[in-house]
Amino acid sequence: MLTGVKSMVKYPSGSMAAFRKPANKPKLRRAYHHKKGVNFSDRGMTLEQQINESNKYYLEEEIAVVHKKPTPIQIVKVDYPKRSKAVIREAYFRQASTTDYNGVYQGYYLDFEAKETRNKTNFPLKNFHEHQIFHLAKCLKQDGICFTIIGFTSLQRYFVTPASFVIKAWRTKDKSSMTLKEIEDHSIEIKSGFRPTLPYLMAVDHFISVRKVNNDK
Amino acid sequence: MLTGVKSMVKYPSGSMAAFRKPANKPKLRRAYHHKKGVNFSDRGMTLEQQINESNKYYLEEEIAVVHKKPTPIQIVKVDYPKRSKAVIREAYFRQASTTDYNGVYQGYYLDFEAKETRNKTNFPLKNFHEHQIFHLAKCLKQDGICFTIIGFTSLQRYFVTPASFVIKAWRTKDKSSMTLKEIEDHSIEIKSGFRPTLPYLMAVDHFISVRKVNNDK
Repeated sequence: MLTGVKSMVKYPSGSMAAFRKPANKPKLRRAYHHKKGVNFSDRGMTLEQQINESNKYYLEEEIAVVHKKPTPIQIVKVDYPKRSKAVIREAYFRQASTTDYNGVYQGYYLDFEAKETRNKTNFPLKNFHEHQIFHLAKCLKQDGICFTIIGFTSLQRYFVTPASFVIKAWRTKDKSSMTLKEIEDHSIEIKSGFRPTLPYLMAVDHFISVRKVNNDK
Repeated sequence: MLTGVKSMVKYPSGSMAAFRKPANKPKLRRAYHHKKGVNFSDRGMTLEQQINESNKYYLEEEIAVVHKKPTPIQIVKVDYPKRSKAVIREAYFRQASTTDYNGVYQGYYLDFEAKETRNKTNFPLKNFHEHQIFHLAKCLKQDGICFTIIGFTSLQRYFVTPASFVIKAWRTKDKSSMTLKEIEDHSIEIKSGFRPTLPYLMAVDHFISVRKVNNDK
């Protein structure tokens, strides 16, 4: 299920893309057929739903403990009705200071952010907020395993990209997006499946093995 | 600043405690004098405030990345007033499924819960909720460094206790509390200070060194 870095599929850029024929039709057909055979696909779930389901699976199977962080809220007013639970009547969204997900897997600290796009050829870097990039950089300094999960929903393709690459791209002057090719070249591609829905720990296993080879740990 | 396990100070139990003379007066006096000399004390902060300040210090100094998780909220109704930020008008508190704090320190996953009591001789186990105990146990299985920070506010004493001991006590039938002596015997005591306010990573350093000796990592 885990596939490594693939050769680039040359999608034409621009808004006419959907009306053009793919450059290498037979390959795409084969890929489509293969997918139908072995995958349950993403079943219309958002990327967040897929990750939450995967985390639930990992938790139940005692494979990893990863949770999505709640949205930070500034609570101003709470009512305590009689014989009923407390109701928050006035509250405001606060700026988060971390990524959405973190947890522990075989002694390793995991930290990641998930983003999806309907784009077919690139991922706009403005989708990452400054606090997310800063947080990932800080966790990297503490030797956490930090990455992003990028979903190209129109293509049903999902990439686990090391935070180091995303941070570098984000910090590059005048760079507004990562191309699909760049993401393919620097990521582990994972296929949407059944249990877990999105087996992102297979990519983490790869990062851990690379780290072990490099004697970082 | 980090002090190891100390001999028990024999506080009498019961409500008359405050009116009785301490059993070993000279020792208590010396301890008190010593504290005044080197510590800024807890400056009237709650345990949570002390930990948040410590985390801020650790973050700024690039020592560790630890955050308190936001309270999970179920949002039902949001108003979007013109020229003003969104206001949550109906929301409910949800049951958390984790502890309050987690993060990364030198490649290690940290997970902990903080509790305080005004008791002087024991800590009631009912202060730990089931989901906190379960979560700590799950993170332990993944080789996280898991603990609790227990503050005896009346004594101005703070203990970093390994989760394994707390879980064991919590699961012991008919055991309603951990005595101060038990906590002293199984914890690293930390002193409230200036920067950081509560240097709990000194206890974590101890846990890491023990782990290294045991070849767990």
